[in-house]
Amino acid sequence: MGRAEKSHRIKPRRIKGFRDLTAAEVRARDRMIAQVRAVYERYGFVPLETPALEYVDALGKFLPESDLPDAGIYALRDEKEEWIGLRYDLTAPLSRYVAMNPDLPRPYRRYQVGPVYRVEKPGPDRFREFYQFDFDTVGTGSMLADAECCMIMCDTLEAVGVARGKYMVRVNDRKVLTGVLENLTGGDVASERSLQILRSIDKLDRVGLAGVRELLGKGRRDESGAFVTGLQLREDQIEVVAGCLSIAAGRGPEFLAGLKAVVGESQTGGEGVDELRQIDEALTAAGFGADRVVIDPTVVRGLAYYTGPVFEAALTFDVVGPDGEKRQFGSVFGGGRYDGLVERFTGQEMPATGASIGVDRLLAALHILGKVEVSATTARVLVTRLDKALSAEYTRLAAELRAGGINAELYVGTQGIAKQFKYASDSGKTVCVIVGADELARNEVSIKDLRLGDELSRDIGADRKKWLEEQPAQFTVPRTELVAAVSRVIQRYESRDG
Amino acid sequence: MGRAEKSHRIKPRRIKGFRDLTAAEVRARDRMIAQVRAVYERYGFVPLETPALEYVDALGKFLPESDLPDAGIYALRDEKEEWIGLRYDLTAPLSRYVAMNPDLPRPYRRYQVGPVYRVEKPGPDRFREFYQFDFDTVGTGSMLADAECCMIMCDTLEAVGVARGKYMVRVNDRKVLTGVLENLTGGDVASERSLQILRSIDKLDRVGLAGVRELLGKGRRDESGAFVTGLQLREDQIEVVAGCLSIAAGRGPEFLAGLKAVVGESQTGGEGVDELRQIDEALTAAGFGADRVVIDPTVVRGLAYYTGPVFEAALTFDVVGPDGEKRQFGSVFGGGRYDGLVERFTGQEMPATGASIGVDRLLAALHILGKVEVSATTARVLVTRLDKALSAEYTRLAAELRAGGINAELYVGTQGIAKQFKYASDSGKTVCVIVGADELARNEVSIKDLRLGDELSRDIGADRKKWLEEQPAQFTVPRTELVAAVSRVIQRYESRDG
Repeated sequence: MGRAEKSHRIKPRRIKGFRDLTAAEVRARDRMIAQVRAVYERYGFVPLETPALEYVDALGKFLPESDLPDAGIYALRDEKEEWIGLRYDLTAPLSRYVAMNPDLPRPYRRYQVGPVYRVEKPGPDRFREFYQFDFDTVGTGSMLADAECCMIMCDTLEAVGVARGKYMVRVNDRKVLTGVLENLTGGDVASERSLQILRSIDKLDRVGLAGVRELLGKGRRDESGAFVTGLQLREDQIEVVAGCLSIAAGRGPEFLAGLKAVVGESQTGGEGVDELRQIDEALTAAGFGADRVVIDPTVVRGLAYYTGPVFEAALTFDVVGPDGEKRQFGSVFGGGRYDGLVERFTGQEMPATGASIGVDRLLAALHILGKVEVSATTARVLVTRLDKALSAEYTRLAAELRAGGINAELYVGTQGIAKQFKYASDSGKTVCVIVGADELARNEVSIKDLRLGDELSRDIGADRKKWLEEQPAQFTVPRTELVAAVSRVIQRYESRDG
Repeated sequence: MGRAEKSHRIKPRRIKGFRDLTAAEVRARDRMIAQVRAVYERYGFVPLETPALEYVDALGKFLPESDLPDAGIYALRDEKEEWIGLRYDLTAPLSRYVAMNPDLPRPYRRYQVGPVYRVEKPGPDRFREFYQFDFDTVGTGSMLADAECCMIMCDTLEAVGVARGKYMVRVNDRKVLTGVLENLTGGDVASERSLQILRSIDKLDRVGLAGVRELLGKGRRDESGAFVTGLQLREDQIEVVAGCLSIAAGRGPEFLAGLKAVVGESQTGGEGVDELRQIDEALTAAGFGADRVVIDPTVVRGLAYYTGPVFEAALTFDVVGPDGEKRQFGSVFGGGRYDGLVERFTGQEMPATGASIGVDRLLAALHILGKVEVSATTARVLVTRLDKALSAEYTRLAAELRAGGINAELYVGTQGIAKQFKYASDSGKTVCVIVGADELARNEVSIKDLRLGDELSRDIGADRKKWLEEQPAQFTVPRTELVAAVSRVIQRYESRDG
């Protein structure tokens, strides 16, 4: 290939909104994914993997489009000029899969983890490629499936290290608000209009109740000074919606009776309250009380395809926002029932419900909680190459360690021994194996305990010169004791590292 | 959303060349990936994850383009009209990452697993989205790194279940063939021409030596009848190349001396032979003999970016091809040294070497070898709902089982008990928990051993009616013994399932 002329060099760039995950980040995420998977499997869900690319018509348009240019997805034409695109969630591909496989068991309960893609404005915590980890139950309208969604959200958060009390699962039913809106307009709630109202309500966390009132009414000027046109509801209509949003979250028969009063005579609203009652009863039976799951009329979720219960799990501890203000960490897990998503394809009813973890957001939360203690290091031992002429010998030593069950890296660089020690330290090694011609002749190996060396060198302070001469952290053993001696040093620290 | 009118229905389609992986397939692949990861980590590699989308200029054009329309990649313009595309391998993104991160340790040793995308003609074993699992060492020209590639390929194949003797790692050095070609043309081997020759040689497995001769000479008519224009080498030149390709694979000083004779005075050829000598010595020291790794002058690999040693691991057992002929399963793992890939960006030399597993191909091989024994089932227990009015009770039973460490699925469908048993059986359950109003009143639970039921029902033959009445595979225990009793039944089969 030859050396690249400066003028022909390619600038190494990563696309904005995309990330490179380093060793510690990948390992932390994979560990969290394994913990989540164990919970999903505890409830009997099985894995599925669909492709990253799908026909655009199969993906559908269900994103809250207001924030998104170009319908929010990466799309291109294939060689037959058909539009294909990168999935923006895992639910739309699931519905395509179910429609293509009519012989699946019913209910079909699957989980799927993987990256999804959205053309959104990138931000410090907002990426265009991010992981979701979903579980869904397809083929039953039973509210037990929705109740399980709430249970699984609780169990998952506790499994990854979010203590009870630090999170809250909030559940609502879209039919409740639809019922309220029906009462307002005499049943004349076109679904698009209804969705716009729900999305205004979904901004409650960000803009507050006063902001939602403005969005439902004449409009609102946001922080950037831009004016967002309102939905032009009448003041008395806004009052009813605001009243519904002001109901404090709760649980149990008394709370549900209050909710029933709000939806009044609306049949849809009544159905919503009854669904919430069934969920409430199942949760109580399984021991999930109001300390973990509450019914909250302000939860609506932004996606277009939800038809009944919706739920989200928010982390309730405070973080300091970009404006220096304290706020709750917020939602990391959300979902709901989407009874129409498969029907798009088949024309047959196929009720379904499920939820999705924002893997990256939850991982960020675990970092804040100090629950991510994953090492970037995979091998604790570096077999150094003091004398490059003995490389075959070093190769043999590394192979012996590996055969003895110890992850061991052979130094394959070209630097001298001092740089090799620095490399060992920088890459998180605990032990260096050192053999010179002398040791080789005596059939011995030297073992350097890098951590003890660090600790001693900190402790001794001014005696550094003396310490360096004595090197108490380095010792020599017969060659036959290599594996045992290295194991001992590694084990010395394993209990500390947890 | 309403019921979709037939005329507005979307056809559920998956893009050709893409797959849906079912539970057993995902679990088998994940298990294999974990086994491979353990080997890569044993050698000290650490994970990295780069995005699926990259700027097209950063990806470069290194695919064997002859088979590929549109340069072989899925590309689109982003909102700034820049070309971005889905990665076609994990090596090009690695080189971009290294170029962007000059402060990485040297050597930098990373592994990465994930899907890559190629616009190739799909076939029964050829997909447009497929998994690769790579490991690479960047920042050293030492042949120890290349020798380790060969060792890791061996260890990996044995770790996933390919027995020694069922595979062979073959290593060569592109400089050897380049040296031979230099001799032929008096040093006048333009790199593009040289690459064309190498790619013709790379077809040896498919077209045989006579076919390669035709491709190097006047050209060749393939099975479809299409004529492929040859490279128009002179007959005496073809003879020299063919001679080189006829050298039997081998190891050790004597073999290398023979190879040295073939490259003659060529400096490049001499370097190639010396590199192979270093690899040979390291392999021998680490105990990797000619039963596992051989030097084979016919190995060239198709990718444009290789500059020195190249290696591949082939499975040597026979399979029956689509034409009914027996053939070796073939290559599942390949790689080589690519010292110029980072230099494209930085203008600085940055030697690198590594290899990549074709995850799907290796998994297909393990299926053939009978080494894939992964269940599609995650929960062995189904808590049935005999009496829907008792749903809260069933929810409580399932929660108790899970709290007792048992993966348990609650039946959340709407069918009757007979269909529930069928569902349990179809979804691989071992145990059903059954409680009616009577059991509930007596504070008992019934437990049905589905496997014993199946076995007995096969054994008893004509006594089926009697057996059904007695139901020896179903028994009742006090409610307090639920977890213990279910555990006993599950454990009855765990040892059998391995």
